[in-house]
Amino acid sequence: MIQRIPPKSGVAFILRKGQRLTVTDPEGEQVSDLVAYNLDDRKEVISSGRSLDYAGRMFLTTGDVLYSNRSRDMLKIVKDEVGRHDFTLTPCSKDTFRKLYNEADPQGGCQENLEAALSEYGIGPDDIPIAFNIFMHVAMDPETGKISVLPPLSKAGQSIVLEACMDLVIGMTSCSAGESNNFVYKPIDYQIGSGVA
Amino acid sequence: MIQRIPPKSGVAFILRKGQRLTVTDPEGEQVSDLVAYNLDDRKEVISSGRSLDYAGRMFLTTGDVLYSNRSRDMLKIVKDEVGRHDFTLTPCSKDTFRKLYNEADPQGGCQENLEAALSEYGIGPDDIPIAFNIFMHVAMDPETGKISVLPPLSKAGQSIVLEACMDLVIGMTSCSAGESNNFVYKPIDYQIGSGVA
Repeated sequence: MIQRIPPKSGVAFILRKGQRLTVTDPEGEQVSDLVAYNLDDRKEVISSGRSLDYAGRMFLTTGDVLYSNRSRDMLKIVKDEVGRHDFTLTPCSKDTFRKLYNEADPQGGCQENLEAALSEYGIGPDDIPIAFNIFMHVAMDPETGKISVLPPLSKAGQSIVLEACMDLVIGMTSCSAGESNNFVYKPIDYQIGSGVA
Repeated sequence: MIQRIPPKSGVAFILRKGQRLTVTDPEGEQVSDLVAYNLDDRKEVISSGRSLDYAGRMFLTTGDVLYSNRSRDMLKIVKDEVGRHDFTLTPCSKDTFRKLYNEADPQGGCQENLEAALSEYGIGPDDIPIAFNIFMHVAMDPETGKISVLPPLSKAGQSIVLEACMDLVIGMTSCSAGESNNFVYKPIDYQIGSGVA
């Protein structure tokens, strides 16, 4: 069954070991911030630093593993129709909108949407790490290090599929930052299936 | 008074708001992993994701701020004689040595040295984030995202100076990963001074 995350919102759910999570961009050029926690010990959390270090690449795709802060496999990318995602920036938040977009009284972003969705699992604001930002297109100038947030490469209907390597709590959003989705706020779809799908 | 962190070891100490921390590479081409916590609430911790996002650059230098996970100023870089540091990779650990260097029975790295040093402040292994890797020279291919860890650009005696924006617990190492320091394990020096230094 396909579930929809409405624009500018977030969800949290349990993904059991061996289950596959398909994340689809139904309209194209939208981003979904994904975080993951060990269901049985939520101090174990997805780690961008470990994952990028072990992959030896800034951009992860099919075959790559998303590791926890304890260097254990959390999720494996088993299919990727887009091939470009970000794993360096934190979820957008009221502070992001204040500091980067100069909004005086911003609404919340992915950070606040993840906080709301994850609270039922006992996960607090300080426990939200750098997300795996699905479909987010971040370019980096190798000389100056300048970061450019570009429109996602995802076209309508394209997906990424991740398989759980342990029982997980997943938090996911439809991104609220204009720069990340070419200033059109859209939904994100997801589906949970068995490992044989 | 100059303090020395011997090769392959770590320290932790309190840095009060307004104090300046000078980190010096006494022999050249050595890396120091730095982490920071709010002294009064250690769930508030240095955040690479926030800092890179707000700077709009992967490489931070003089004038840049290192932000916490709560988007508050923790440290400001007030002087930088080297100009190249990393803020994407987690501290090297036994797992790093196993996974990247294929060592069957590795000794500990910066992760374990930070754990040992920070334990007296009630900070545990899961609470060690992506460090600000002083003098670490990481290059990224903008097309493939390939990460290359290169010899640091720091020459003997060169320094970076950071000023505390709040009362902090600081953890710091002399890096244990050969790739990071051109396979010569050296000490790191540091000095705490008043903000007028």
